Amino acid sequence: MTYCVGVLVRDGLVMMADTRTNAGVDNISSYRKLRVMETGPGRVMVVASAGSLSVTQAAMTSLSDAMLLAAEGKGGEGHETLATAPTMFRAATLVGQALHLAKALVDETVGEAKVSTGASLLFGGAINGRTPRLYLIYGSGNFIECQSDTPYLQVGEHKYGKPILDRAVTFETPMYEAVKTALISFNSTMRSNLAVGLPIDLMTLRAGDTAPELVHRIEGDDAYYRELDERWSAAMRQAIVGIPLPPYGQQHDRGTLV
Amino acid sequence: MTYCVGVLVRDGLVMMADTRTNAGVDNISSYRKLRVMETGPGRVMVVASAGSLSVTQAAMTSLSDAMLLAAEGKGGEGHETLATAPTMFRAATLVGQALHLAKALVDETVGEAKVSTGASLLFGGAINGRTPRLYLIYGSGNFIECQSDTPYLQVGEHKYGKPILDRAVTFETPMYEAVKTALISFNSTMRSNLAVGLPIDLMTLRAGDTAPELVHRIEGDDAYYRELDERWSAAMRQAIVGIPLPPYGQQHDRGTLV
Repeated sequence: MTYCVGVLVRDGLVMMADTRTNAGVDNISSYRKLRVMETGPGRVMVVASAGSLSVTQAAMTSLSDAMLLAAEGKGGEGHETLATAPTMFRAATLVGQALHLAKALVDETVGEAKVSTGASLLFGGAINGRTPRLYLIYGSGNFIECQSDTPYLQVGEHKYGKPILDRAVTFETPMYEAVKTALISFNSTMRSNLAVGLPIDLMTLRAGDTAPELVHRIEGDDAYYRELDERWSAAMRQAIVGIPLPPYGQQHDRGTLV
Repeated sequence: MTYCVGVLVRDGLVMMADTRTNAGVDNISSYRKLRVMETGPGRVMVVASAGSLSVTQAAMTSLSDAMLLAAEGKGGEGHETLATAPTMFRAATLVGQALHLAKALVDETVGEAKVSTGASLLFGGAINGRTPRLYLIYGSGNFIECQSDTPYLQVGEHKYGKPILDRAVTFETPMYEAVKTALISFNSTMRSNLAVGLPIDLMTLRAGDTAPELVHRIEGDDAYYRELDERWSAAMRQAIVGIPLPPYGQQHDRGTLV
């Protein structure tokens, strides 16, 4: 399993993904799911992937290969690639087509075998310093765009970490506040689900920039992450203590509770 | 959708369920999913149900009918019911059989139609003041028992509200602290998922007792619940503010963040 989140605030774009892949709990390994694509100067395009690794790898590779072949003049006349798409929407359309095709090919290959080929992607970035965009691309190739009312999108094991995002992130949240909140969202997920784990890959793109501000891997022994974990746990406990006991029933007469 | 949680602490048993049923977001209604079964003096047996209403209703009714017929001498010689099962384990076995059968019948009825007949139950209680027990009964009829290492079980839309339970509930948590934490778990779920909503039904059984201490419905305008919602939201925001910004990258040089 996997957890990926993208947050799009006024200041810029944050994308984060864990690195755990597993085929059953006894076959866990680490694999990069957040990729900054090589799309040429002035262009930032980042993909975070969840679901079948064979499908998402095939989709990503076909997008890279298309750029490679086009650069060598073998791409076919007028074929658009991530290096030439004029807008992020057109680029997202290409990513959607690649994912759809990759899933169809893998579905055909696995045939009747009960192999899950579900996959979804977050695709974010900006072209020539324009406003960053963020999309959630479904396995069928269709996609939705992140908008300011709910300034985040998730793929993978998203439910555990959703409440904190719903409570704490708005379009006006500063970018590194959004990073912090997304890390708390990861922390909640990793506490409750073994299939999501450190390291976490992190990318930030400031609005107006033509290159990521930060591409960073948060390792298992990261001091800040450990502090965040401890502080958040302590704050949760404190918050629960701060809420009075329910008034329902006669519990205060029973003498076993303070 | 539905969210039900049972917490089994040293002090006793807490069971809670929301009351929202829906067939699509445009067909939402309220239905009791937490039921105290009529099983006779000294016996407390409570069911919280999630999934296909036609399956869980049929299962519950067959269990009630079996007791009714037995009381009228029409139950068949030696047939065990929830009113006669000597232990909670034997009672859970009966509930599992009833659920398995109900699901099989509904599956047969709906035939090829793409109707979801998935269902699961929480079954908790105590006989003659013995230690309360709590079970999660799957649609196939098999079940697991709640144990003190992880002193809670959930059915339905369980992921949003799981992190807070993982962080805050142990076997030594006082019973009404557990009620409070379970309500926070509901609060997180309802913030993130429209298909879970107030009112919430609540039951508590103190260890050693032969009747529930409290059977209560928390209505939509409940003052304590509203206070809990507000306090928890404020505490979350405060907790986030209390964690320093991530040290990654050069953000402190950019001048847009404090």
